[in-house]
Amino acid sequence: MSYRTVNNGELNKSYLNKVVKLCGWVQKIRNLGGMTFVDIRDRYGITQLVFNVDKNPTLFEEARKLGREYVIKVEGTVILRNSINRKMPTGEIEVEVNYLSILNKSKTPPFTIENETDGGDDLRMKYRYLDLRREPIQNNIILRSEVAFHTRNYLRTQGFLEIETPFLIKSTPEGARDFVVPSRLNKGSFYALPQSPQTFKQLLMVSGYDKYYQIVKCFRDEDFRADRQPEFTQIDCEMSFVEIEDILNMFENLIKEIIYKVKGVKIDKVPRIKYSESIRDYGTDKPDIRFEMKVKHLNSVCKGKGFNLFDSSETIVGIVVPGGAEFSRKQIDSLTDWIKKPQIGCSGMIFCKFNTEGRHKSSVDKFFNNEQLESWRSESGANNGDMILILAGDEKSTINAIGLLRIELAERLKLRDPNLFKPVWITDFPLFEFDEKSKKYHAMHHPFTSPNDDDVELLKNDPLKVKAKAYDMALNGTEIGGGSIRIFNKGLQNEVFNLLGFSDVEANEKFGFLMEAFEYGAPPHGGIAFGLDRLCAVISGSDSIRDFIPFPKNNSGKDIMLDTPSKIDDDQLKDLGINID
Amino acid sequence: MSYRTVNNGELNKSYLNKVVKLCGWVQKIRNLGGMTFVDIRDRYGITQLVFNVDKNPTLFEEARKLGREYVIKVEGTVILRNSINRKMPTGEIEVEVNYLSILNKSKTPPFTIENETDGGDDLRMKYRYLDLRREPIQNNIILRSEVAFHTRNYLRTQGFLEIETPFLIKSTPEGARDFVVPSRLNKGSFYALPQSPQTFKQLLMVSGYDKYYQIVKCFRDEDFRADRQPEFTQIDCEMSFVEIEDILNMFENLIKEIIYKVKGVKIDKVPRIKYSESIRDYGTDKPDIRFEMKVKHLNSVCKGKGFNLFDSSETIVGIVVPGGAEFSRKQIDSLTDWIKKPQIGCSGMIFCKFNTEGRHKSSVDKFFNNEQLESWRSESGANNGDMILILAGDEKSTINAIGLLRIELAERLKLRDPNLFKPVWITDFPLFEFDEKSKKYHAMHHPFTSPNDDDVELLKNDPLKVKAKAYDMALNGTEIGGGSIRIFNKGLQNEVFNLLGFSDVEANEKFGFLMEAFEYGAPPHGGIAFGLDRLCAVISGSDSIRDFIPFPKNNSGKDIMLDTPSKIDDDQLKDLGINID
Repeated sequence: MSYRTVNNGELNKSYLNKVVKLCGWVQKIRNLGGMTFVDIRDRYGITQLVFNVDKNPTLFEEARKLGREYVIKVEGTVILRNSINRKMPTGEIEVEVNYLSILNKSKTPPFTIENETDGGDDLRMKYRYLDLRREPIQNNIILRSEVAFHTRNYLRTQGFLEIETPFLIKSTPEGARDFVVPSRLNKGSFYALPQSPQTFKQLLMVSGYDKYYQIVKCFRDEDFRADRQPEFTQIDCEMSFVEIEDILNMFENLIKEIIYKVKGVKIDKVPRIKYSESIRDYGTDKPDIRFEMKVKHLNSVCKGKGFNLFDSSETIVGIVVPGGAEFSRKQIDSLTDWIKKPQIGCSGMIFCKFNTEGRHKSSVDKFFNNEQLESWRSESGANNGDMILILAGDEKSTINAIGLLRIELAERLKLRDPNLFKPVWITDFPLFEFDEKSKKYHAMHHPFTSPNDDDVELLKNDPLKVKAKAYDMALNGTEIGGGSIRIFNKGLQNEVFNLLGFSDVEANEKFGFLMEAFEYGAPPHGGIAFGLDRLCAVISGSDSIRDFIPFPKNNSGKDIMLDTPSKIDDDQLKDLGINID
Repeated sequence: MSYRTVNNGELNKSYLNKVVKLCGWVQKIRNLGGMTFVDIRDRYGITQLVFNVDKNPTLFEEARKLGREYVIKVEGTVILRNSINRKMPTGEIEVEVNYLSILNKSKTPPFTIENETDGGDDLRMKYRYLDLRREPIQNNIILRSEVAFHTRNYLRTQGFLEIETPFLIKSTPEGARDFVVPSRLNKGSFYALPQSPQTFKQLLMVSGYDKYYQIVKCFRDEDFRADRQPEFTQIDCEMSFVEIEDILNMFENLIKEIIYKVKGVKIDKVPRIKYSESIRDYGTDKPDIRFEMKVKHLNSVCKGKGFNLFDSSETIVGIVVPGGAEFSRKQIDSLTDWIKKPQIGCSGMIFCKFNTEGRHKSSVDKFFNNEQLESWRSESGANNGDMILILAGDEKSTINAIGLLRIELAERLKLRDPNLFKPVWITDFPLFEFDEKSKKYHAMHHPFTSPNDDDVELLKNDPLKVKAKAYDMALNGTEIGGGSIRIFNKGLQNEVFNLLGFSDVEANEKFGFLMEAFEYGAPPHGGIAFGLDRLCAVISGSDSIRDFIPFPKNNSGKDIMLDTPSKIDDDQLKDLGINID
């Protein structure tokens, strides 16, 4: 006998008078005199069951003994409800039960299994399996499953092969820390867990696989901070015989496809913005372009007027707030407080309201006359009725702060429409950054990233001017992926290694087997990786990746439910040939 | 400018006179007087390029300088070949080249990139990226990608969600050894890598996800032996509100779908054989049912005739070889040698040829007269012209040996048709095995496996008679998957734990958080896991999983290409708070 003939999301008027079998969890019980109503739930929905004392007194009694989260099996007849609930798909009907079996009882859950629960973070992490019952989390997990499916389906249609790469690999002395795995059969030796399949996907290109992808777990032993996970999932891709245009076209179509399939939203065009322009106009390399409010550069109209703060500042930038002349003192004070928060780090903010009558009002009226303020207005393209907020200071931190202010303003003005999806490519990143501390060049993406063809000459004399064939995709203000065209020419690779300060010996130690592979006919190739956890969160308009991971770790890298990491037996340590300090 | 307009597998007569761009690796160069032919290869196929000294002497010279595995880009015109090669899809045409660019040179590979290579195992493992260029391996990798895709596609159609479970979990003291991962942020503590997502998929059922699947890496730190890998991939599935029939139907359809999609072979029916019958008839619980030759039990006709070997043996079993009366002495001797190999472990084999004239001829003619031999014939259902091979000894090892002999005979008689696919379910496994050494019961599948409903009473008095709701699928003589309906009732679970000798404290230590989860409304559930590496190998008629894994480890768990496991820095050890013994 099968457990059920229908699920709890599918019954409607077309089933009237049919006998059905249902299984699920007791969501709610209401006793109304001679009637008991029980809502049962599964991941498909909720169905209302009705027990009538007149029709079946025994069952009626049994139903009254049910508790929240009991697992039950029922059989009954689909009937019309007295009061129809238009809000739920099964709201037209209820099931008059003629058979009830308790499959399993439940203790009272430590928090309510409702969309808005009363459970705190720690409690919900400890009982993650109960938190996973809540509809908002279930929707996230279902969304993730669908994003993964449509990713695979699209990439397969485009000729990509799904190829698995190993998890027990070799530790590399580069970048973030590897998690390592002691080898029992080779005592004193270790495997490492991959931070990404980067070298393997490049090897697969050398092997001729042409179009590779994988949705794959990666591991980084970072000092934990909010919203980072020691294990995370990448959509990892690589292609051969491609230039930058091929990659951008292929993968903007992937993102379009995913958003269309899971959100029903069609995206027309994915703009391409150069890194330098993105920093200039948005104060960030992951701009939210759902709204305008670009950064205005005001050095020319602000400096040299005797106002010391401006005159001593490297950079003076502003954001025009449409209609901002109406802002109250309180609203402005609140923004000033916000900008002074340590994570923003500004010492203050200057505002100027461009009033409709043309009499401008600023917080620095003492230093600037109306004519000068009018030049701010015209330089920034503001209209009368708008307000400009101005930050001044050294270039890097001021640009960063104005980018954050832009986002904060958009939040407050509700300009970040969660139903809008605006991906954007950021291109032409610098190949190198110069680290003042170590006096060394660092690869901004990774050491295999190819310079732009036109810039190769600059490597010799002006490496910081060299642009890279690298690209990031930002979606609604969050970086969701990035990659590059790789160097596949040995001479050029050596030149880059030299600039990065690797000797031949070091380069060989770090990247030996990949460099050796490159000697046997490496094709031109490039790729990209998207963060799946992040992508799902951004698509859902959420800031936190944790609710899109079935069993996440907390900010100290612990799984509270499992109580791990934990001690292991001395025997196990002995077998592995290791001691604890 | 794009690198290519077509790949090397797609050109045919319909492209005649078209100008195309191609990229690929130089497979072969033939110089014929004023003509040079170059085969270029990519994963789609091979295209013949032609360079004519009269038409373009410069290019002709350049082409002669190409080497094996050079990566080139060409442009040219599709023309008809002089001598058509019907064996290859592009065999009707060739490309007369007007532009050639060497994208990358190649050293001479350490072995030939041909279907039959001259490279030994170790060399091919060290240069795995070159071995992966060979067509047979590429076909395996492509097959694997397709098997994974059709698995996902089918399961999604059936309402399954793909849900990821964590890799950094808790070490359990059960079964095979865990790989462990020292935690840097929680010094002295360890994560473990999962041997399977078993507990997580059961938790997901408690969470109400109803139909879960995942194609997922699992890890087992076993003492390595041939054809085992420390990391392997499972198709892992679990369902709620199901009985055994629901699972068998769902997953035999999965296997049918996969084999149909990747091999074009339709499978009608998947037979279900009880464990005891499989052992009786095939000498194994993973029978190859592509051919008959069932095991014949001959105690009744062999014993008590004064032949000491038979009289002192627990079990006398035979295999009828159709037409075997024609076997030569040499063929029989070779089988006798085979049966005495240590891994089979028999001391000898008795044969009897049932000759067409009715005069039977056996290796024990001294002890049995023709009438008695005739009773062997009729008992075993042999025809005149057949031969029976008989093994005798203790039950367990003799049954095992006859099962192996059955397979060996089928190999020699070419009865194992690689184009036939015969999956079979084995059901009704015993719930427990009794270990004579420890005098303890062991769970044959795992401790959460449910007993058959009718057998629950037997738990008290005769546990070895209890059958389990467990099932394995065998395909062509190899186990490809297995699973069970799980216990979801706490009382029954405790009874089983007690029989397995776990105290309540031990049970709680080992399975605490799962048992706790079961207190909050666990639904009836069950599942299955298929070995993806093995499944791909069996579908391809291969015995070895290694060629279906892109980057496998060798039998000592080493990756020769990466040279791992390997030493790590002292600093890294210090960070982790561990010492090497």
